[in-house]
Formats: sequence, C-alpha cells, structure tokens
Amino acid sequence: MRGAVIHAPGDVRLETLDDPKILHPTDAVIRTAVTCVCGSDLWPYRGLEPVGDPHPMGHEYVGFVEEVGSEVTSVRPGQFVVGSFATSDGTCANCRNGFPSSCLNVEFMSTCQAERVRIPNAQGTLVATDGHPDRELWPSLLAVSDVMGTGWWAADAAEVRPGSTAVVVGDGAVGLCAVIAAKEQGAERIIVMSRHEPRQRLAREFGATDLVTERGDEGVARIKELTGGIGADSVLECVGTAEAMRQALHAARPGGNVGFVGVPHEVAVDGQELFFSHVGLRGGPAPVRRYLPDLVQRVLAGRIDPGKVFDLTLPLDQIAEGYRAMDERRAIKTLLTP
Amino acid sequence: MRGAVIHAPGDVRLETLDDPKILHPTDAVIRTAVTCVCGSDLWPYRGLEPVGDPHPMGHEYVGFVEEVGSEVTSVRPGQFVVGSFATSDGTCANCRNGFPSSCLNVEFMSTCQAERVRIPNAQGTLVATDGHPDRELWPSLLAVSDVMGTGWWAADAAEVRPGSTAVVVGDGAVGLCAVIAAKEQGAERIIVMSRHEPRQRLAREFGATDLVTERGDEGVARIKELTGGIGADSVLECVGTAEAMRQALHAARPGGNVGFVGVPHEVAVDGQELFFSHVGLRGGPAPVRRYLPDLVQRVLAGRIDPGKVFDLTLPLDQIAEGYRAMDERRAIKTLLTP
Repeated sequence: MRGAVIHAPGDVRLETLDDPKILHPTDAVIRTAVTCVCGSDLWPYRGLEPVGDPHPMGHEYVGFVEEVGSEVTSVRPGQFVVGSFATSDGTCANCRNGFPSSCLNVEFMSTCQAERVRIPNAQGTLVATDGHPDRELWPSLLAVSDVMGTGWWAADAAEVRPGSTAVVVGDGAVGLCAVIAAKEQGAERIIVMSRHEPRQRLAREFGATDLVTERGDEGVARIKELTGGIGADSVLECVGTAEAMRQALHAARPGGNVGFVGVPHEVAVDGQELFFSHVGLRGGPAPVRRYLPDLVQRVLAGRIDPGKVFDLTLPLDQIAEGYRAMDERRAIKTLLTP
Repeated sequence: MRGAVIHAPGDVRLETLDDPKILHPTDAVIRTAVTCVCGSDLWPYRGLEPVGDPHPMGHEYVGFVEEVGSEVTSVRPGQFVVGSFATSDGTCANCRNGFPSSCLNVEFMSTCQAERVRIPNAQGTLVATDGHPDRELWPSLLAVSDVMGTGWWAADAAEVRPGSTAVVVGDGAVGLCAVIAAKEQGAERIIVMSRHEPRQRLAREFGATDLVTERGDEGVARIKELTGGIGADSVLECVGTAEAMRQALHAARPGGNVGFVGVPHEVAVDGQELFFSHVGLRGGPAPVRRYLPDLVQRVLAGRIDPGKVFDLTLPLDQIAEGYRAMDERRAIKTLLTP
C-alpha cells in the first residue's frame, strides 16, 4: 500500500509500505476513506521538533473496517468507523473517568496518512456509523476524530455554559472547531482572535459574534472592553505558544476558565499570577472518544459541519503539496483522498 | 487603643495606636472579640517578605459593631459580626460572579491584631449573627473568617464531590480546615500529608482517613498506592511552595483537580507537564464572603468546630510570644484575646 513518510524537515513523500496486519487480538485494520494533515504535523515538518529516522505520519482517519482481531466485537468488517487520534481500551480507570486520552494502555496514532491503517485498542476506540454515510459527510466525520473533538474539549475544559461569553485564541482548524463547540455548548457571545480574512469568515459562519485583530496586551485590552472590563467567562486556547497562553490567562475574568488544547511549547505559568487571577486552567490531549458518539450524531444530523475547515483537497499522492500549502498558510487544513 | 505593630523580622510589639474612625460612608468600626496570628503573617516575621516601615498586622477578626458609616445598612451597632480578610462591596461584577476576593473595590485587611478595627466595604463584607454567640464559639467563628473559609475554597476549587478521594497537602491551620471542608463536601477518603503527631491527631479528628508521612516523590508514590495507581480525584494544596505544588499536581489523577490556596512563593507550573497530566488547576485568595452565611450556620449548629486549630490562647499583650510559638512550630495557630 502507499503511505506518507517524513524523511527530514520539509520532506514528506508517499512511498510503498507493507500492508498493516493484525498484530494483537485487540487490533483492527481499516481501509482509509479520507485522512488529512494536522497543524501538529507541522512541528517536525518545520524542524521545530526532531524528525529522527524516517517514519510514517498522520493520526486522523475515518474508514472501512477490513479485519478485526479475535477480541474485537464492537465493530466488524465492512463498517464505516470513526476513531480518535488517541486509542484507548475503554475499560481502565482513566477511561471510566472520562479521560480515554490518558488511557493506561493509550497508543497514539501515527501512520494514518496511508491507504490502510492498523488501529490498536480497536474495541474501545472505534465507533461505527449506522450504514455508510454519504461521501460529503466524510470530511466532517474526519474532523470529529481530532480537530472537532479537540475544539469540543477546549470548550468543555473552559466550562462554556449557556449564555456565557467565550474567547477563542487561535484561528487554525482547532480554533475554528472550538467556535462551533462554544456555540453548541450555549455560549451567547463568541469572540475570536484572528487577523486572517478567510479564517475570520469561517469563524463568523461557525458562530463567532466578535473578531479581535489586536494581539498581546492590545488584544487583551480589547477583550476587556468587550466584556464589561473584567474578561471572559471562558477562554479556549488553541495554539500552544507562551504568547497564546499569556493572552488566554489575561483574557479570562476572575473565576473564569481557560481550556488549553494546543500542545504547549515552552510554556510556563507563574503560580502567583495564576493565583491572583482566580482563573481555572485545564488542558491536555482531547478525550475525543468520550465525545465521539455525540459528535458523530451532530454531523449525521447536519447540525454541525466542521469539515468546512478543509479548504484544500488533494489526492494522497500530492501529500507533499498538502504539507507545503499548510506550512505556507495557503490552506487551513488539507484533506487527503487515498 | 492597643494594636500589634511589626518593626522588623522577629519584632512584633503591642503599641498604643489611634482609635480607628469611620473614614468613608461604607466603613464600620468593630470592637474585636478575638483575633489571631496567620501562617501568612510569618512570611514577613521570618524575613521572607520585606517588612518595610513599621506597620500594623493581622487580617482575621470577629467582633461587635461599634459604629457604621452612613451607607451601611446591613449591620448595626451592637451586633456580633464575622467578616473576611478580603473586604468586598458585594455589588461589582466579580462579587456577583462569586469571587468577592477579586472585588473591583477589594481592600485586604491588615490591622486586625488590635482592640478595634475599621472595616472597609462593611455593607458587602460583614455578616451578623442572630444574637450574640456563646464565647466558646468565637474561635470557630474567627476561623471561618479566614482559615476555614480558605480550606472550604480549597475543597471547592479542587471540586471535591460526594464519594470522592481527596488529598490534603499541608497540615497547618488551613490544611486542617481543608480536611473539615473535604469531609463536609462529601469526600469518602481523605488522605493528609503530615508528619507532625499533634497535627495528625487533629486531622484524624476532623475526618482524615489516611495519613502519609512520606514527602516528595515518595509521598506521591504512596498516594498512588492508596488510589488504585492513578492518583486522587481532588488535591487541596494548602502550603504555597514549589515542592507542595509539585506534590499536589503529581498526586491528582488524570481529569482530577488541584485547588491551591497557599499564596505561591516562587512557583512555576510547566505547561507541557500540566497538559499531559489532564489535571485542572484553580486557586487564589479564598472567596470567603461567598461561604460565610453557610459556614457561620455550620458553626452555630455545632456541625463543624474549626476553632480547634487554635492550640494556644494568649492575651493580646503577649502577641510577641504568639508569633514566636508559631514560628517555632510550638503552636499550630495562636488565638489572641484583647
């Protein structure tokens, strides 16, 4: 089969690889329906994380089950399935507590930009749809497996409540999905920090009520102006840089909450500053599996359409261009069709 | 009147000071029933915070109203009142959101180790009891104004729930009150990190089910052993040092919560570590005023007895010994009678 392999920063190639096989009785193998490139894939692509030896890439997938291990009874060959970038057994204490992305047997996906993928922990990870969804729903179902689930988690961790005010820091695919999540979870006012016109447009379409183009202290001051001088109830931090975290913490009101879902890179939070802010802080890899049944239903019901974050669709063999377009910010997110 | 003045580290004296007066129409003046020394008073006493010019000390008080400003209608002369170390107007957005200790007009008390005290924001701050409570209840009502309110906040911020497991880091007066709070808020298992026998005894009396004497990584390992390998639902951090925060964050399970109520001194939280822990973090100066009506009732009903944290009672003119005993850990907390 064909699959993406990164060799060095800026060098991702489609290569012929061995077909994946069932290695454990808890595995499944799927044929990929669609896959995509994630903002986090750009860290090694840009040389901001070491690449090491050449290795496959990708952790987002929807597809058709081809084969299951002997212990997998929840899905069967032929079904269309959605999963999570973090696989989970569904039975450990952390899964039972609602944090499958901290599953004691978690395995993070890393080979999904390919025609076929082995899914560990398939029993606890995969959710099958009733029948085969229409092809035009695939992008939104794919989004649910990562960016939409992560945006949902941002809103959940930031404790968005009906009638509340939410700020979204970051206008990437996760930030845009966080707008959908804030709206669905009942936020009345959704302020998005963005200065990119196409992303602003999509943010508006997803439910943003206000846009803030200023950054840093000016951005915070603008948010304070929009929130009665005290800050927002909830801030959804969808970037992961020190600057984004600083903005997020300063934009939240006393007693408000910051949900941070971008993997932090060189972020340190000052204890005394956090203390006197009265702001609650929670983040982490999104517990996507917890949200999957609900989010899949919202997509199938036509209630949400997070697939709109894919503004570039390429065949898998143009994977190199898919990465390049995102790196150069010509695309928000690239969909890949095997 | 007489009141305490700190001149330098280790040098607190009772001196004759001007009687406090109504300075603003929102003020009240009370005659102190009892006051006390706080663990946080030891920071300047030990020279760990600058003392600066000689100044009065103390932020905990219960007493009898002597005089009120023209805008104060919620309490009247002769009433017995309980307040908070943070005064609040009760009307601003942060007060309405339940965070009176972030009141837009907050003034922190600082002159309470004295025979009389001016209370700013009296209308929003003071709670009068029905009639005059028995003298033996004064210590517990005094505790409510700070350490018990702060322990309650620790449990609230750490999201203690009925049936949950709570860890208390710190066996000072706040930590011990946090044990009461965790029990009252329904924790089934309460693990206290303490190696001081008299404090362990009081912790047990207040509801601790387990004691951990190990510290650092060993302490965390012991807590993991006691919590099915994953950590506690809630951790109440009642110290404020980097080491205590580290222990607290490591002792919480994925998806659990740390409430931190000791003012952090040189504490920095690593963003990536917090991210992958899935732990929620919230702290700050306790919103005591929010809890006051409820906590006063629990004391008057004999349901809680946080006054037991006072294991040394001295007349106000022995204030120097009151500080010394706490500094040398001969006393958990010193009650002062004017």
